[in-house]
Amino acid sequence: MTELWYTEKHTKHSGLTMSVIQTILSAKSPYQTLLILDTQEYGKVMLLDSLVMLTEKDEFVYHEMLAHPSLYAHPNPERVLIIGGGDGGTLREVVKHPSVNRAVLVEIDNMVIEASKQYFPQVAVGFSSPKAEVVVTDGIRYVNETDERFDVILIDSTDPIGPAEGLFSKEFYHACHRILNEDGILTTQSETPFLDNFASVIPRVMKNFRSLFPVTKLYLASIPTYPSGLWSFSLGSRKYDPERSFSQERFSRDNLKLSYYNESIHQSAFSLPNFVRELIKE
Amino acid sequence: MTELWYTEKHTKHSGLTMSVIQTILSAKSPYQTLLILDTQEYGKVMLLDSLVMLTEKDEFVYHEMLAHPSLYAHPNPERVLIIGGGDGGTLREVVKHPSVNRAVLVEIDNMVIEASKQYFPQVAVGFSSPKAEVVVTDGIRYVNETDERFDVILIDSTDPIGPAEGLFSKEFYHACHRILNEDGILTTQSETPFLDNFASVIPRVMKNFRSLFPVTKLYLASIPTYPSGLWSFSLGSRKYDPERSFSQERFSRDNLKLSYYNESIHQSAFSLPNFVRELIKE
Repeated sequence: MTELWYTEKHTKHSGLTMSVIQTILSAKSPYQTLLILDTQEYGKVMLLDSLVMLTEKDEFVYHEMLAHPSLYAHPNPERVLIIGGGDGGTLREVVKHPSVNRAVLVEIDNMVIEASKQYFPQVAVGFSSPKAEVVVTDGIRYVNETDERFDVILIDSTDPIGPAEGLFSKEFYHACHRILNEDGILTTQSETPFLDNFASVIPRVMKNFRSLFPVTKLYLASIPTYPSGLWSFSLGSRKYDPERSFSQERFSRDNLKLSYYNESIHQSAFSLPNFVRELIKE
Repeated sequence: MTELWYTEKHTKHSGLTMSVIQTILSAKSPYQTLLILDTQEYGKVMLLDSLVMLTEKDEFVYHEMLAHPSLYAHPNPERVLIIGGGDGGTLREVVKHPSVNRAVLVEIDNMVIEASKQYFPQVAVGFSSPKAEVVVTDGIRYVNETDERFDVILIDSTDPIGPAEGLFSKEFYHACHRILNEDGILTTQSETPFLDNFASVIPRVMKNFRSLFPVTKLYLASIPTYPSGLWSFSLGSRKYDPERSFSQERFSRDNLKLSYYNESIHQSAFSLPNFVRELIKE
């Protein structure tokens, strides 16, 4: 029997390898290539430009940890904007919050949305929420042009090369800041602190956030199929300190069904190992 | 140019792959095979029976996180026993503590000790401490026969297959408990909670610890080259709750030079994601 293995190089010299049952979809949009594989270990896997975006087995970590720390740092998030995240996983987490009454998802590539709806129905489930509005356009353009104001903005981007490059720019963060309410929160995925080719992203994002927000924090979560297994998120807040503003009462009342995030993870995710503290030292 | 890659299968269907500059040493003892590779991404890598034991790049996480949570949970650790850990990395961390005046390392395989001294001098540095005593023998036999009593015992074992199998048995934990002082702490590495073939170890270890200790805790750390990148440690304590007994004053006074562990990590490492809580539910 032929053994088919997919290997994602995380750096020039290391990577993650997984055995493949079959290729489910291979497609191309004006923005990127999409590959969906069925794998033995991780279930169905979505790759964009040959990088793992999500796997059925561990997508819960990334999506819960991009959404809930910000949504529980804000005392009453009603309007949430998601930039990117076309698979719908972050949207699924956002619409779980009783306080949220409107979640706008802006994705540049409709191919990702359609593929997720077809092949990852448990991830794409948020698209059918009556709270959700999906806008297929460039996130930068949307943020620059909208008149709406948001309580929380989540940047659910691919890596800062290719179509997502502009989503890591100072100009874009500034534009996001403009459309936040005065107690709003902006959070972006910001790569891993462990591997040099990724880790340089973190101080750059944090520096830009510091020029815009009085409160800035980095936090971490463990995602096995992302490079190094340790992933970072950068949070900028106009008012609330996420380590102090968490409401146990609201969290208990909401009683969301989650597999990773909880009241204890909310606090501990902001604890940084020494080498990560060093990376973001001012 | 020929590209040489080493792939460690973490499960039957997934693994970590790294490009290899050259093989430095390939050897065999009565207990196991040893391979030392020079790699571009992780520096020198030591493998036992084809599993990564340590890499120069990320060994600091494992060794700091096996040693310091227990040594700072105990208010005054003087005598420490390390079972396994023949590379010397855990010993290096233990002898950093001013309070420790005796550290006994019991390793079954002298080949590991010698190879580490020769090829990983920064890891093996603890062997030259005047506080250190090295005993080359079976850890189970040592624990069963010694008359000495210890404040902290650290089990720095390989996976629970092959030579280390007995180091995960209830009988062995019971024997360790016997040679702990009445306020002593026993901590063992206990694999990853993410991949099914490893995760079954955690509830088994915790169940055994619960039958012996009034205080039992699982804690986590991120180690990129270990399966899934998220690693667990199980701690059993005869008296102190590690989440309450940490002394900021002693930690500040000691001022150890560490790259991962700090006062904030000490607390946050015990925060468990929901799926891990589920795994160790009583």
